[in-house]
Amino acid sequence: MSSSNFVKNAAGRLVPTVINGENHVPYQGIGKYIPQGKKHAPTIQSIANFPQDGNKQVASLKEALIKSGLKDGMTISTHHHFRNGDLIANQIFDVAHELGIKNLRWFPSASFPCHEPVLKYLEDGTISHIEGSMNGILGKYASQGKMQGTAILRSHGGRYQAVQDGEVKIDIAVIGASSSDCFGNANGVNGVSTSGLLGFALADSQYAEKVIVVTDNFVQFPCIPWQIQGNYVDFVVVMDKIGIPEKIVSGTTEITKSPDRLYLAELTAKFCDVTGIIKDGFSFQSGAGGTSLAVSDYFAKIMREKGIKARFARGGSNKYLVDMLEEGLIEYILDGQTFDLDGVRSMRDNANHVWTSPFTSYNYHGKGNFAQLVDVVILGATEVDVNFNANVVTHSDGYMLHGIGGWQNCLFSKTVILPIPLFRDRIPVVREEVTTLCGPGELIDVIITERGIAINPLRTDLIEKAQNSGLPLKTIQELKEEAEAICGKPALPKLGEKVIAAIKWVDGTVIDCVRQVL
Amino acid sequence: MSSSNFVKNAAGRLVPTVINGENHVPYQGIGKYIPQGKKHAPTIQSIANFPQDGNKQVASLKEALIKSGLKDGMTISTHHHFRNGDLIANQIFDVAHELGIKNLRWFPSASFPCHEPVLKYLEDGTISHIEGSMNGILGKYASQGKMQGTAILRSHGGRYQAVQDGEVKIDIAVIGASSSDCFGNANGVNGVSTSGLLGFALADSQYAEKVIVVTDNFVQFPCIPWQIQGNYVDFVVVMDKIGIPEKIVSGTTEITKSPDRLYLAELTAKFCDVTGIIKDGFSFQSGAGGTSLAVSDYFAKIMREKGIKARFARGGSNKYLVDMLEEGLIEYILDGQTFDLDGVRSMRDNANHVWTSPFTSYNYHGKGNFAQLVDVVILGATEVDVNFNANVVTHSDGYMLHGIGGWQNCLFSKTVILPIPLFRDRIPVVREEVTTLCGPGELIDVIITERGIAINPLRTDLIEKAQNSGLPLKTIQELKEEAEAICGKPALPKLGEKVIAAIKWVDGTVIDCVRQVL
Repeated sequence: MSSSNFVKNAAGRLVPTVINGENHVPYQGIGKYIPQGKKHAPTIQSIANFPQDGNKQVASLKEALIKSGLKDGMTISTHHHFRNGDLIANQIFDVAHELGIKNLRWFPSASFPCHEPVLKYLEDGTISHIEGSMNGILGKYASQGKMQGTAILRSHGGRYQAVQDGEVKIDIAVIGASSSDCFGNANGVNGVSTSGLLGFALADSQYAEKVIVVTDNFVQFPCIPWQIQGNYVDFVVVMDKIGIPEKIVSGTTEITKSPDRLYLAELTAKFCDVTGIIKDGFSFQSGAGGTSLAVSDYFAKIMREKGIKARFARGGSNKYLVDMLEEGLIEYILDGQTFDLDGVRSMRDNANHVWTSPFTSYNYHGKGNFAQLVDVVILGATEVDVNFNANVVTHSDGYMLHGIGGWQNCLFSKTVILPIPLFRDRIPVVREEVTTLCGPGELIDVIITERGIAINPLRTDLIEKAQNSGLPLKTIQELKEEAEAICGKPALPKLGEKVIAAIKWVDGTVIDCVRQVL
Repeated sequence: MSSSNFVKNAAGRLVPTVINGENHVPYQGIGKYIPQGKKHAPTIQSIANFPQDGNKQVASLKEALIKSGLKDGMTISTHHHFRNGDLIANQIFDVAHELGIKNLRWFPSASFPCHEPVLKYLEDGTISHIEGSMNGILGKYASQGKMQGTAILRSHGGRYQAVQDGEVKIDIAVIGASSSDCFGNANGVNGVSTSGLLGFALADSQYAEKVIVVTDNFVQFPCIPWQIQGNYVDFVVVMDKIGIPEKIVSGTTEITKSPDRLYLAELTAKFCDVTGIIKDGFSFQSGAGGTSLAVSDYFAKIMREKGIKARFARGGSNKYLVDMLEEGLIEYILDGQTFDLDGVRSMRDNANHVWTSPFTSYNYHGKGNFAQLVDVVILGATEVDVNFNANVVTHSDGYMLHGIGGWQNCLFSKTVILPIPLFRDRIPVVREEVTTLCGPGELIDVIITERGIAINPLRTDLIEKAQNSGLPLKTIQELKEEAEAICGKPALPKLGEKVIAAIKWVDGTVIDCVRQVL
């Protein structure tokens, strides 16, 4: 990548304009880039070309891939519904390798440590590069500059946007489902390998040229509910086992026991209380980490005390949220993914536990999305800087070990709160400048640390409401200085020139890039 | 329309190749026309152009239409969920007239006698022509050659196909919904003006440039369930009353009391029994007319006697089908529209009463559709001919008084049975040649009349199973001759040269056209 291809974007970050041989638009500011084109237009099909009896089952994944026309340079998509218990993605690339296919673009909604076996296919050129979250070892591999192509990381909404807009044209989508019928109607709520829902594959089903559903629970037509509609599906493959159930549910589904984290959660809930965010009919989204779960729990206590309820909560759902729904503290859960089996059960059985998708919740190139309508979101970050900018993909040593998830998309809710420790392993989390910019500071309202709360100066309303509350308010600069007083000025990561990943903003523009760690 | 624009299609019908100035492909035979293009690609949107708080409500339908850019020559779509109780469509054209707009194409999923007021707008040029079913008076007006442009009639699936394929580009879709929130999430199951579901508007919401939701039951976000997704919606309008509830439900929701019709229904059920169509796990679709309801009732009796159940029934649903679901005779209702309030209630409350849409059920230009998977469908017809061709849009006097509905799409089920009287008002229904060809005879398997059953010679399997059953089997030729022996040879309709409507086949080709009645 020659340096002539770099420009300074609206966030002041030097970003490439050509990535993997294709042009990309630099970030222009929030709401500034208005797309001009038409959505991606898939090929018109005819049922004359499909089995008359609607039975699309083929004998194996290999047969389905061959019938889908698998060839060099194609884009293959998969989905992280099975998280670290996925057994499908590796098999796709085993087949590709066996067939001598090269130079594939792997376009997962996220990849996990269970996908370590694909490293050998990145080495031998079966896969040229991964576009999607690389949690853990794959991210480390990319950070070391070993991946042939450049990674592109997108939010959940950004992934939908990229597919919808034709920025990423998927040749073959492979969708794992805990239930499917012969026609390809599929869901994630029935069967053994339940993932709750299959929303991350929605864009792929709508826009990919070929769609393969893989299941280990083959049911008679009709498979109800159909979260994936068979009318988009080309082939159905039945396997013995598509996922490891105990690894499908997230690792972090228990409330934190750390006194520090509990304190952060309590501070967050208090902040929402004194500023009037928690009120009858409000809405909130909190993640699946131990601190986030604790926040939900504190919210529940406050709501019980006040005798109020929330109109809706956004999932990732888990047993704590489900308890609140069942107790009547929440009217609806609008859910993007279920993080435990209570979430799966509730989604399956409770009509007020509603499926959403990256299209409804997060797509920035739609006529609005749900993220805008949420009163408060509680998010994490690996780093925050004195301009309230935040990072979620790299650690301060430069290694890219996480994906963006729905994080960027959630920044559009009415109030964004980041409860974070002031430092981790004696490395300050609040810094002069984030290593990688994922979210612009103007969208981030409150930083809550164990040593004080910093409110974004743009939110004069929140400052006014919080100032006489007894909460430990500080400036972000003060928080940074406290961190440095304890830990010392943090060392800068040792980075090379090579760009190993581009970070997309929700509108498809490049907000930052990640460089090789030396 | 010059005669040079006519060709004889694969069904031997002389059809125009240019309609309203646009090229159309003549019918080429079942499954012969394979589309080559890409789906219609709507403009990419940005939430930066929509209200930050997600509130899309505007003060009036007029304001919504003006903000949608209503202008001369546009295509405006509406939907027949409210059937003859619709109060919205007429108001759209009142606004258009008031604004001096001319030459609109009205693209309803169906129009009803309640839309008689638009006749004056057809007269004064506000509307150039209607593309969609014209039930009753509007059809008569078109048949008299008074409509400026040429009508185009499509099946429910054909309408989805035409929109998906970009054959009809909708400028503004107006969707009436018995519940909506400010974001445009909408359904037809809650509120007063309940229509059950909103599936006929699905294509419009996905592909129209501007989408307006009109409701008389405005609910707090989120409107659950969302049958129409607000992410496709531009504006929301709240009115006092969008439909007349008692006219929303269909007129024919009681089992026929006519002994002749009951006999037809009984014969139909017996035929399905002796030929083994009714068996454990089978599936069926029957319409909402009095005879069809009686067929369902006879099916229920047979199933009870045999101790078997159907895997699914396709709706139009009604209380008889709902009773069967609740009794356990049917596992699932896959429903396209609810014909009475029992249907609405069941759809709202019973997870096994499942919404479908013209996309899932009927779209011929998808990767299969549900209609193919149904074991037997019971349909009506205005005429059938000795080649088993059938007509559903015109009467034998040439007047076009009905739409196609899902009729053409259902012909792809495994067995198609038409229980029809041999004659109506002393006019034979079984004829030498149908006045208008809507369904090719090779897809129509059995004609059941009060004077005998004719099985299509192509279905040797059914002939073999039925021949020693005691059922009154005859040839279609014999039925025709019996009808003529009683009624005399029917007079041919008096038709002019002017083509007043084109009839589309499920793949978008022109299967026949309808001429002016003199």
